[in-house]
Amino acid sequence: MKKVIVVGGGILGAAITFELAKRGAQVVVIDREDRGQATKAAAGIICPWNSQRRNKKWYVLAREGAKYYPSLVNELHSFNQLNTGYKKVGALSLHSDEAKLEAMKERTLKRKIEAPEIGDINILTSTEAKSLFPLLAPGYSALHISGAARVNGWALRNALIDASQQLGATFIQSTSTLIKEHNTIKGVKLSDNTTIYADEVVIAAGVWANELLEPLQLSFDVKAQKGQILHVKLTDHLCSDWPVVMPPHDQYLLTLENNNIVIGATHENTTELSDTITIAGIKEIIDKALLYAPGLSDAVWNEVKVGFRPFTNDFLPVFGRLKQYAGLTIANGLGASGLTMGPFIGKQLAKFLLESECEIDFTPYSIDSSIQEL
Amino acid sequence: MKKVIVVGGGILGAAITFELAKRGAQVVVIDREDRGQATKAAAGIICPWNSQRRNKKWYVLAREGAKYYPSLVNELHSFNQLNTGYKKVGALSLHSDEAKLEAMKERTLKRKIEAPEIGDINILTSTEAKSLFPLLAPGYSALHISGAARVNGWALRNALIDASQQLGATFIQSTSTLIKEHNTIKGVKLSDNTTIYADEVVIAAGVWANELLEPLQLSFDVKAQKGQILHVKLTDHLCSDWPVVMPPHDQYLLTLENNNIVIGATHENTTELSDTITIAGIKEIIDKALLYAPGLSDAVWNEVKVGFRPFTNDFLPVFGRLKQYAGLTIANGLGASGLTMGPFIGKQLAKFLLESECEIDFTPYSIDSSIQEL
Amino acid sequence: MKKVIVVGGGILGAAITFELAKRGAQVVVIDREDRGQATKAAAGIICPWNSQRRNKKWYVLAREGAKYYPSLVNELHSFNQLNTGYKKVGALSLHSDEAKLEAMKERTLKRKIEAPEIGDINILTSTEAKSLFPLLAPGYSALHISGAARVNGWALRNALIDASQQLGATFIQSTSTLIKEHNTIKGVKLSDNTTIYADEVVIAAGVWANELLEPLQLSFDVKAQKGQILHVKLTDHLCSDWPVVMPPHDQYLLTLENNNIVIGATHENTTELSDTITIAGIKEIIDKALLYAPGLSDAVWNEVKVGFRPFTNDFLPVFGRLKQYAGLTIANGLGASGLTMGPFIGKQLAKFLLESECEIDFTPYSIDSSIQEL
Amino acid sequence: MKKVIVVGGGILGAAITFELAKRGAQVVVIDREDRGQATKAAAGIICPWNSQRRNKKWYVLAREGAKYYPSLVNELHSFNQLNTGYKKVGALSLHSDEAKLEAMKERTLKRKIEAPEIGDINILTSTEAKSLFPLLAPGYSALHISGAARVNGWALRNALIDASQQLGATFIQSTSTLIKEHNTIKGVKLSDNTTIYADEVVIAAGVWANELLEPLQLSFDVKAQKGQILHVKLTDHLCSDWPVVMPPHDQYLLTLENNNIVIGATHENTTELSDTITIAGIKEIIDKALLYAPGLSDAVWNEVKVGFRPFTNDFLPVFGRLKQYAGLTIANGLGASGLTMGPFIGKQLAKFLLESECEIDFTPYSIDSSIQEL
Repeated sequence: MKKVIVVGGGILGAAITFELAKRGAQVVVIDREDRGQATKAAAGIICPWNSQRRNKKWYVLAREGAKYYPSLVNELHSFNQLNTGYKKVGALSLHSDEAKLEAMKERTLKRKIEAPEIGDINILTSTEAKSLFPLLAPGYSALHISGAARVNGWALRNALIDASQQLGATFIQSTSTLIKEHNTIKGVKLSDNTTIYADEVVIAAGVWANELLEPLQLSFDVKAQKGQILHVKLTDHLCSDWPVVMPPHDQYLLTLENNNIVIGATHENTTELSDTITIAGIKEIIDKALLYAPGLSDAVWNEVKVGFRPFTNDFLPVFGRLKQYAGLTIANGLGASGLTMGPFIGKQLAKFLLESECEIDFTPYSIDSSIQEL
Repeated sequence: MKKVIVVGGGILGAAITFELAKRGAQVVVIDREDRGQATKAAAGIICPWNSQRRNKKWYVLAREGAKYYPSLVNELHSFNQLNTGYKKVGALSLHSDEAKLEAMKERTLKRKIEAPEIGDINILTSTEAKSLFPLLAPGYSALHISGAARVNGWALRNALIDASQQLGATFIQSTSTLIKEHNTIKGVKLSDNTTIYADEVVIAAGVWANELLEPLQLSFDVKAQKGQILHVKLTDHLCSDWPVVMPPHDQYLLTLENNNIVIGATHENTTELSDTITIAGIKEIIDKALLYAPGLSDAVWNEVKVGFRPFTNDFLPVFGRLKQYAGLTIANGLGASGLTMGPFIGKQLAKFLLESECEIDFTPYSIDSSIQEL
Repeated sequence: MKKVIVVGGGILGAAITFELAKRGAQVVVIDREDRGQATKAAAGIICPWNSQRRNKKWYVLAREGAKYYPSLVNELHSFNQLNTGYKKVGALSLHSDEAKLEAMKERTLKRKIEAPEIGDINILTSTEAKSLFPLLAPGYSALHISGAARVNGWALRNALIDASQQLGATFIQSTSTLIKEHNTIKGVKLSDNTTIYADEVVIAAGVWANELLEPLQLSFDVKAQKGQILHVKLTDHLCSDWPVVMPPHDQYLLTLENNNIVIGATHENTTELSDTITIAGIKEIIDKALLYAPGLSDAVWNEVKVGFRPFTNDFLPVFGRLKQYAGLTIANGLGASGLTMGPFIGKQLAKFLLESECEIDFTPYSIDSSIQEL
Repeated sequence: MKKVIVVGGGILGAAITFELAKRGAQVVVIDREDRGQATKAAAGIICPWNSQRRNKKWYVLAREGAKYYPSLVNELHSFNQLNTGYKKVGALSLHSDEAKLEAMKERTLKRKIEAPEIGDINILTSTEAKSLFPLLAPGYSALHISGAARVNGWALRNALIDASQQLGATFIQSTSTLIKEHNTIKGVKLSDNTTIYADEVVIAAGVWANELLEPLQLSFDVKAQKGQILHVKLTDHLCSDWPVVMPPHDQYLLTLENNNIVIGATHENTTELSDTITIAGIKEIIDKALLYAPGLSDAVWNEVKVGFRPFTNDFLPVFGRLKQYAGLTIANGLGASGLTMGPFIGKQLAKFLLESECEIDFTPYSIDSSIQEL
């Protein structure tokens, strides 16, 4: 039985762990619980089909990621993991110019051929849109996509970890460093100097990946994009089944269980991993939200979450074995699509590590060009 | 020599008139000079290539429209019509999430094959973008498209009309009604009861087209979208060569000659053709603009223009001969793409009326489904 | 019969002219019609009693100014001058903290002893306030002062000039320069070189006064404060009888005839007399207005007026004879209280010039400390 | 030795307790630690002198309250209570219209005769004001009052309680009910049924006072005004010595130790004591703050506090013995002036209970008109 150490307990690490555990591997997942963990902050919209991103490498992962969700959630149910926040609530993409919605509709319809899970695709008048999401401003029509879903990133991650533990996996909260012998990675050393050996180590450490690789004289090309996300609660409406809302700018609205709505997020390129909430960030979030959903001003403030999305230079996930050292696999760069793609990529990596056949070709996502020898 | 009456002196009517006159036809163009004429208010961005609209019927007209501009502007120069406001200043499409810009870049690159006039396509950092348009907020990267141009709708229309007059065309400011004999349109009657007969009548009357068709017991499917547009003047910068800016929402910024910047526009579906400026409209324009270009708050207020864009049900231009009556041609529904497509469509219609070969197939743009018999 | 030339046809010059004419003097009023004339832009709130200003010199003029209005308006009626925009509509002073309103109520009640025209003084709940001015935000209580009035500055000025002309006064639109002989001012020379001689010249030229005095080697201490004022029109309400609204900041709302509401004004200290409208100014006006009266967002934009209020160093009006030259009287510095005080001060100056007894002592308002010899 | 129970451990209860303990009484202070305690949320500006409130009953308490601070803070130092947040940092009262500042200056100067602690009173240009508080917008002049101070309500309360405990007082965290025998209050019963007897009971329970009085068939007239207050932290400036800022509206800015700035507060009349933070409240606070101090947008979000200010019908504090029951004293209604007046009123009440001579006459603040028998 193969033994694998997964460093990083975000959505990706958790998904690798779960699939490895299911397939009988011995797994240890180690998480440092950094402030600003992307998965902990993320609000998950599972709706890649109307995206402007048409890059095929990206879209294949996003489409397959979305397709995988229902069966994954089902599987977690069989481990009595009922709380993932996953729900098919549909999505409304708003615009004041209906011609733009028509364009989006066509784009989405074309993609339905390979992704029937998209469901129904309709342009709604502003009145119809408001009947589905009563806080909207007048004057915005919407494209409605019935197959869109939302998910709670942290709940899903916890469900995956818990199910993995039921299957025998071990979860450790610690920092860790790689143990290297010649050109092979043999395991990790924890902060209390405990050493754990394994056949394979996987680094799924997002924006903090370089801290593990630097001792190997390697530099991994990953940039951090800070997102501030505001959680509010409605007191006058039951909103938990309302659709996700995508206004025509760079933010979104997402209903959650318990009558919460998530508003956000900022996209702040940063080199400093400081998870502060800023007045400028909150002002940007509130101002942008109220332009399209003025009814949110009656909501109750809940909390602000801050996470750091990991990005590569060409905004594509990368994953696979490191060629400089044996026994080391890296996955990173899921960016703003982490929740959509994370579970699917995690499953593929688990299969790869156990030498099963994968559902996608890894070639386009090679880590080679992201690694530099120092 | 064929005689044609063009009812409607917006960009489309003016372009038909010019091409007809150039080709030796006898043309009379009649314009009512309504308040809210779309061409009079329009700020022209000639940059269809990065649009989310991928509908081929739409895109062919937009691409060909953009391609036609340089030669048209050149031609007008030979009539000593130097003021069209046309200038290739490039465009910046902003986003806080660079992955989205990457997607837009790919989309635009693909289109460059058939449209080399797109020019250079590059992603700029927020600092680079700010060096081209110094009023931008920090934190927004941009896709820069060097081939994008701006044009002044009303100046271009006037240049077309003036050149047509040099070629012998007649411009009349009047309302008009169609003169019908049996199933043939014979000409028009002006408000002073003058009658003008012609071989062909073309209706290019935008949102007011139905007033001409109702006496024929026909209803034309055209809806009006009101746009409010704010013109400001910079006093601290020379901005006339700055690029067009497209923030990630439903508005834009456009530099003009004389250090003006155009900010807008609203998209208000309306049945009432009232060209009022509203506080809500101005607030929306200013709030949206300052989110992405806070430096605009130092600008001096110039004026607000209001226009009504004509739309058909499927947001596509329609044009061609009416089957119910002989001698009547209709063109309409150019929506927000009027300045991009108007000159090109106008040229095609002129060729069509003079039985020359057209550069596009008219079939996809048939007016038949837009006409209802009352 | 004494002959007087009044240079400056704002509210103050017009009031002097009218009173002089009524009392049988021969009057010529000369106005340059500068852009940015304060009276032309001013929205007039006649409600000095709840002001925080307790300076007695200021308050006496303001109180007497307010008290004088009804009889002046009546008098103008007898000249068939019916359009002054004067109407006793009451005023609402808003605050979210009722203790502050209670304080204002007490202050105003004390002043009622000498100014019974204040009328009823009551604190209204936010619901009661909203019933009088339906566009208010919830949560603001108000002090209601029933005796407050509004007036249209330009209409009143025109009524005064017209009535003066009926009485034989002459109105000339021209620039002018003073004619000096030894230490006496003998009259003025117009831009067409016409000379007009008179027994007395009065300079009521607001922020432009120094241009007349500089040739005398005198400098008058007057500063300009620019005010931008937005006029909007309501379409869904009949608001002409609504009260004036004073939110708890540095701006106000004022209903006018014809369903207009005036919103403003900015207070911009400036040395440049440029009457531009700025985006920052409009944004400030709209943002401040909508904080307290969000219902204004449905209003229709009408126009923006810009005026320059003249201020002295201690923010008090100054008026009286110049000691350096015989035959020259100056009045200036009415600041933001010009419409309230202008007619009353004008009347006093006319009496003074005709050697009648004045209702106030001029000593506290001496121009001496405002004049510097160059 | 007299034994006194003080119900309510806000600023007022703590001040009574401290003075009683100092004077040798045996004191028990009981606090329920309700969410929304006014003292816990309050930001303390000690600057009553420029207030528009001229009600003498109010002003005497506010002036004496401000005058008392330095000696109280000194006294607490002798108990090694160094952390009260009290600091004389001065205050800036902003306005765009300098005439209004001139008025405020005169008002404040008059009050200086009886309150020399006001210090220097000067009008500053906008540049001078910005040099003291660099985040201000241009265009706002300011009245600077050098004697103004700030205080941290909760720190001061804790210092008073701690010093009292050093003096032998007992602090209990519990709910309590009054023990009544015939027409005398004998003590209180705690939530664990412990009974404590005393010679006197004082109710200083703010908006929650009625819960104690209802069992006596009495109703106390106190209304709650909710205040939401935003705490931010500056990272680019050392602001702890910056002056308090009072913009010309219903909110303020207050620097604290540790580079914090307090922005607020809302004034929301409410019958529901729900301490939720609302989007509308946050938006109001941020929008109003940024109008006058746009530099705050770079600040880091810290927390939002919510408190309920207790108000009587005429916005005046009331305090004294209840006439319906022996042994019961009530103090309440300090409203937004709680931190300014609380320590002083507390001291007077302690003297009163111990039959010492008080520094003020209690008559104007009688509780009689605030009590209704049910």
